[in-house]
Amino acid sequence: MKEVIQSTDPNHPANLIPSLCKHFYTLGWVTGTGGGISIRHNEHVYLAPSGVQKEQIRSSDIFVLDWSSQNYIYSPPSLKPSACTPLFLTAYRLRDANCCIHTHSQWAVLVTLICEASNLTKFTIREIEQIKGISHGGIGGAEIKEGGRKSGNLSYFDTLSVPIIENTAREEDLTDAMEKAMREDTDACAVLVRRHGVYVWGKTVEQAKTQAESLDYLFELAVRMRQLGVGWT
Amino acid sequence: MKEVIQSTDPNHPANLIPSLCKHFYTLGWVTGTGGGISIRHNEHVYLAPSGVQKEQIRSSDIFVLDWSSQNYIYSPPSLKPSACTPLFLTAYRLRDANCCIHTHSQWAVLVTLICEASNLTKFTIREIEQIKGISHGGIGGAEIKEGGRKSGNLSYFDTLSVPIIENTAREEDLTDAMEKAMREDTDACAVLVRRHGVYVWGKTVEQAKTQAESLDYLFELAVRMRQLGVGWT
Amino acid sequence: MKEVIQSTDPNHPANLIPSLCKHFYTLGWVTGTGGGISIRHNEHVYLAPSGVQKEQIRSSDIFVLDWSSQNYIYSPPSLKPSACTPLFLTAYRLRDANCCIHTHSQWAVLVTLICEASNLTKFTIREIEQIKGISHGGIGGAEIKEGGRKSGNLSYFDTLSVPIIENTAREEDLTDAMEKAMREDTDACAVLVRRHGVYVWGKTVEQAKTQAESLDYLFELAVRMRQLGVGWT
Amino acid sequence: MKEVIQSTDPNHPANLIPSLCKHFYTLGWVTGTGGGISIRHNEHVYLAPSGVQKEQIRSSDIFVLDWSSQNYIYSPPSLKPSACTPLFLTAYRLRDANCCIHTHSQWAVLVTLICEASNLTKFTIREIEQIKGISHGGIGGAEIKEGGRKSGNLSYFDTLSVPIIENTAREEDLTDAMEKAMREDTDACAVLVRRHGVYVWGKTVEQAKTQAESLDYLFELAVRMRQLGVGWT
Repeated sequence: MKEVIQSTDPNHPANLIPSLCKHFYTLGWVTGTGGGISIRHNEHVYLAPSGVQKEQIRSSDIFVLDWSSQNYIYSPPSLKPSACTPLFLTAYRLRDANCCIHTHSQWAVLVTLICEASNLTKFTIREIEQIKGISHGGIGGAEIKEGGRKSGNLSYFDTLSVPIIENTAREEDLTDAMEKAMREDTDACAVLVRRHGVYVWGKTVEQAKTQAESLDYLFELAVRMRQLGVGWT
Repeated sequence: MKEVIQSTDPNHPANLIPSLCKHFYTLGWVTGTGGGISIRHNEHVYLAPSGVQKEQIRSSDIFVLDWSSQNYIYSPPSLKPSACTPLFLTAYRLRDANCCIHTHSQWAVLVTLICEASNLTKFTIREIEQIKGISHGGIGGAEIKEGGRKSGNLSYFDTLSVPIIENTAREEDLTDAMEKAMREDTDACAVLVRRHGVYVWGKTVEQAKTQAESLDYLFELAVRMRQLGVGWT
Repeated sequence: MKEVIQSTDPNHPANLIPSLCKHFYTLGWVTGTGGGISIRHNEHVYLAPSGVQKEQIRSSDIFVLDWSSQNYIYSPPSLKPSACTPLFLTAYRLRDANCCIHTHSQWAVLVTLICEASNLTKFTIREIEQIKGISHGGIGGAEIKEGGRKSGNLSYFDTLSVPIIENTAREEDLTDAMEKAMREDTDACAVLVRRHGVYVWGKTVEQAKTQAESLDYLFELAVRMRQLGVGWT
Repeated sequence: MKEVIQSTDPNHPANLIPSLCKHFYTLGWVTGTGGGISIRHNEHVYLAPSGVQKEQIRSSDIFVLDWSSQNYIYSPPSLKPSACTPLFLTAYRLRDANCCIHTHSQWAVLVTLICEASNLTKFTIREIEQIKGISHGGIGGAEIKEGGRKSGNLSYFDTLSVPIIENTAREEDLTDAMEKAMREDTDACAVLVRRHGVYVWGKTVEQAKTQAESLDYLFELAVRMRQLGVGWT
């Protein structure tokens, strides 16, 4: 089944995962082997491997899972599947997403620490233009409406709310808490993991990536607002 | 009319918009599809499309508007014109500018938040050398005079003042406030939008770009000065 | 013996040292000729030269030491061996490491300054996911276990502790203190040098590099946590 | 005399100035046309032009001055010589330097603002390893001595002191104050200009560049130390 990770199309998951990981590395999202990404492509789920330098992944390092049977149809020799796998699959199952990005961005971690000090289990912010880059449930319609807003996206006066789940020793043990958070807040576009990072998904790779960027922008801005004594909501 | 977006000259708007957007992305100005740019070239206005990854724009993704008729003479299939369009046109109409850049830079947003806490509707700073990189009205003469200052630019002891308008739910609804701010302060080189970003223009692409850089430098410096307890004026 | 610094393999130390130094320069680890790196390859120790622009090193600028005789078998004309050499060798001798990285990262320096104010001779942090990127002793097994943790790495609820030694006028005079710190804390993955930087090692180049990244991430996060009033342990 | 700006050697001033300006732009030193660089090469002084995008300079944009006659032997059509010229020449005359770099780095500006609040006319810092990257007078011998220190450089327990002169409306009016500061403190490796930036020189391009990097590192560190309440001396 080696053909599933071979394509000359730069937008094929086998090529996108390496190029996006290289890019995410420059953003500080996957430093020191942290973080990851998965893309669902028709009946196949592509997954970056665990514990390797993300900026150096090649197509042949990617795991491919068959969606219906949940069996690996391609496994790189001497690599291990990512412990994030059940979390990525949760995003696909509950939101019908097709891409999920996991970052260890320091801004995400700092936001969860600031919230922890106030016993908050969700991060909320409002009246910042970049909120309009986030869709309802993370999978809202991307058609541009009048006013420059996408049909399924938050408007400027909406409040963005991202649930925060508590970290666990083993990454896969986050699965139940992530599923619970996603079911309780069907509008949530992402799940923050306390002292760890964030999971962001989208209907398409582009939606997942641009929402991950908009969220990271908002997390960074929120930390700087806090340092300047400016409230979030 | 496909020929208006085809040129082998790297300084033609059809090529400059993609390369500048790629560059602005690395500066954090257009993350997550935010921000934009427009160039007026003879009788044609070139506009980056709405809601797409700005760092991946190609020439064929650009909208072209005829200046006199205000009709689109080239529209990329399946893309939407930017909601910033009426704001870009305002800069061309009121200042006879030929390029307008819109960023979501966090430093611009933070400056508007700091000013909000003091009920200020303009950002002012003085006696910082980089102020000399800004021209009167944003379109002052670029000829270098003695002392290293451009003929139409602020001098070191001038006070730079940038009006701040309040954000609206729909980007095009900013147009009236932007026009009012530009008419009331004919010396203004840019307009800040509260909790949103900044619009900067210039007589040329180079003037708009270097002024956007100088302003962003001043916004960042102002935020850091505030954190250190140093006043702006 | 010029052949020891000639190889067409990009992963050979003679090629890795230049490419890693170029990369470390972009991370701010080796600015202004500071910092360095060494790789032990079979019986040969490769060492970046002293006092040169690290981002411009070529293969022919690298010193090569014979491990058993401790004699240089290749010395670039008109360059001097790094004063870090005895420190790199200490990591090889005490931990059986094969790569050692020395950075002047500002985050490392700031962490030692914060600790100095509290008379602390070690930096400790816990319950941050990125801790899982660090191995026991810096040379723990890299096999991925269930939960996404490497077999020899810290778990989420472990406390990461990095000893801090006091700086000296001459870099080689740090050797005794580094050896003492490594012997007293056999679990230490690195040694911080007060007001100077950090030494990080690994069983492989990849382990040393990814641990240096994870540590730098933790140092930066710790500084930002301090600015926000969030404790480390 | 067009041949003075034509060379196939990447280390010739006509090629180094464009490549260094491009690099300095990525460091934030010459944003928005600010800053500059000059190299003295035998009897010729090469100077980046005034008021242009520094990251886009080509060899043919460079001014060349004859050292003995002080006349321009090459002037690019439609460009103006830099207002920094008399300041660069002062460094050559008083220190026998051969390269001088002028940056608008925000860290340099912030350091002068912090000093201003305490009425300080010099920036001093000590016991930071990176100080060893700075030479006495900016032109000390670069031969590596034992301990990893260059023969003409500061040692770890020396105090680095950089004089700060007050800014003026016209850049060339800084010349007298710069000369006075350099004569009064013959050990000074650079001159800070309040609310403006820094001038750094060296015997060679490499010395000027690495000292500019080490100073910028120290300025940034000093600002962060101040934010954490850690003293400089």
